[in-house]
Amino acid sequence: MKKLINDPADVVGEALAGMAAAHPELRVDGENRLVVRGDAPVAGKVGLVSGGGSGHEPLHGGFVGPGMLDAACAGEVFTSPVPDQILAATAAVDAGAGVVHLVKNYTGDVMNFEMAAELAAAETGAEVVAVVVNDDVAVQDSLYTAGRRGVGGTLIAEKLAGAAAEQGRPLAAVADVASRVNAASRSMGMALTSCTVPAAGKPTFEIGESEMEIGIGIHGEPGRRRVPVASAREVAEMLVEPIVADLPFAAGDPVICFVNGMGGTPLLELYVMYNEVARVLRGHGVTIARSLVGPYVTSLEMAGCSVTLTKVDDELLGLWDAPVRTPALRWGV
Amino acid sequence: MKKLINDPADVVGEALAGMAAAHPELRVDGENRLVVRGDAPVAGKVGLVSGGGSGHEPLHGGFVGPGMLDAACAGEVFTSPVPDQILAATAAVDAGAGVVHLVKNYTGDVMNFEMAAELAAAETGAEVVAVVVNDDVAVQDSLYTAGRRGVGGTLIAEKLAGAAAEQGRPLAAVADVASRVNAASRSMGMALTSCTVPAAGKPTFEIGESEMEIGIGIHGEPGRRRVPVASAREVAEMLVEPIVADLPFAAGDPVICFVNGMGGTPLLELYVMYNEVARVLRGHGVTIARSLVGPYVTSLEMAGCSVTLTKVDDELLGLWDAPVRTPALRWGV
Repeated sequence: MKKLINDPADVVGEALAGMAAAHPELRVDGENRLVVRGDAPVAGKVGLVSGGGSGHEPLHGGFVGPGMLDAACAGEVFTSPVPDQILAATAAVDAGAGVVHLVKNYTGDVMNFEMAAELAAAETGAEVVAVVVNDDVAVQDSLYTAGRRGVGGTLIAEKLAGAAAEQGRPLAAVADVASRVNAASRSMGMALTSCTVPAAGKPTFEIGESEMEIGIGIHGEPGRRRVPVASAREVAEMLVEPIVADLPFAAGDPVICFVNGMGGTPLLELYVMYNEVARVLRGHGVTIARSLVGPYVTSLEMAGCSVTLTKVDDELLGLWDAPVRTPALRWGV
Repeated sequence: MKKLINDPADVVGEALAGMAAAHPELRVDGENRLVVRGDAPVAGKVGLVSGGGSGHEPLHGGFVGPGMLDAACAGEVFTSPVPDQILAATAAVDAGAGVVHLVKNYTGDVMNFEMAAELAAAETGAEVVAVVVNDDVAVQDSLYTAGRRGVGGTLIAEKLAGAAAEQGRPLAAVADVASRVNAASRSMGMALTSCTVPAAGKPTFEIGESEMEIGIGIHGEPGRRRVPVASAREVAEMLVEPIVADLPFAAGDPVICFVNGMGGTPLLELYVMYNEVARVLRGHGVTIARSLVGPYVTSLEMAGCSVTLTKVDDELLGLWDAPVRTPALRWGV
């Protein structure tokens, strides 16, 4: 295993210390492993909390700041944060207007966020609404999931619900934006190589020199099928066609098109992929209203990509365009 | 070779087509392989042009936009752009106030930018001032360079000179900012793995499972030495000590601290590295005034990182903080 780390057991804590040093506008709680907006709780504002296993950076800690998340809980690599962390995050951002938990649909995350919401209600009286993101069309159930997995759509939900919260919308309205984004989002990913969890020290899965995995999960969970390595053009069709068919996205629909790198794929290749994804969408008459290209929902150093489409209306587009100031996504401020 | 591409010969052109599709606010000239600010030439403004071999994305095309570059010329992967491209870029951004060429110090780039400047003077009358960036302390000469190589400091020079140009400063003043940034910047990089140039189809260099290369160049050129894989703590010392000694950076100096990913290293590890880099700098009493952490000056999928320090005064800090709107670096707008 070749990694820029010290003790594998310390990776998450030390990365959080690095975030604290690099981003003085954020508050990092090393004990509870939280990244919190520096001015939280913001008076009158609904709090927005997400989190999950580490190893997907910048998701979630890199999306904390005005216009997006109020706090992110970092679990161990590919491991759900525990209820006490989520409880601490909820308390840190609750200004009395309630808190939305944005939860990727993995069994451990869903359970731990549920327990944290119950603890919060009992201990602090915080009103919590949870929205579960399950945008991955690849598989119905998987190694860590009952139902579809939450992947790239999580970023879109965090951005749009974050903008809605920033505008001062009430709890139910912020949760409604997150739910609508999830209902309007579909994703699918693929991998050329495995990733290596530091504590495991060896690749999560084996994959041959001429194989790729279509429908991969962001923890290296199996996808739909192993196929021979194909061109970017063919990969785009393998990812986009199931996405488009699933909602379905139809001619004339405006979408946010997010081509995501899994971590180890160069940006040069992601733009080659974006070009092919745009071509497939043109064939369906789907209109790209906004784009995002880069490694935002990663699986450590895995080579591969995912595509996320979110069908949008003018209101959701306005929330996308609203100012955001986080380490990884920033505009308008 | 596992890559998300079509024909290896088409990678650069197709990635530029992807950039055109994803960033409608930019103008992509597919024939000349340029990324140009959409509203160029901007009346009264000095034009800022950079470029170089592809494979370092987002450098340079991802830094085109208000507050940074007016145009970027994309060569083939790890190959200098040709004079005609640079001439076309210069013509596209020249509003009569002159053009600054920001050139990384590689023999081919320096020669081709020089030829383009001569052609521009003869053909269009454009006044061009070139500033060569050579911030890499690792080696004095290298495979492609006489003198030190240009690496991470290029991004800092593009940002600060871009802000100066945006403020309406005249040609000599914009070039002066770039020169001062270069004089105040030092970098050093390392690699855990090689990268693979698409047209070559095999790794640029061989490196053992327990080795790393200290002082690597951004094309995989040899660095200072091969050493056994070490901890992030030790790597930070190997990179930062030579940088600090070289300017030298002294106690009380405020710096921009840029921890850059080479492409294949997860952001989680870059923050572990940042934590260690900050620790070494604290030991020297150097003050981090601003930070940047992420894969910005890459070598395809190479795993590794580099550290760049730029000593700044209030004026340079103001230029760093000035609004910028590019695909890869954006704030304030």
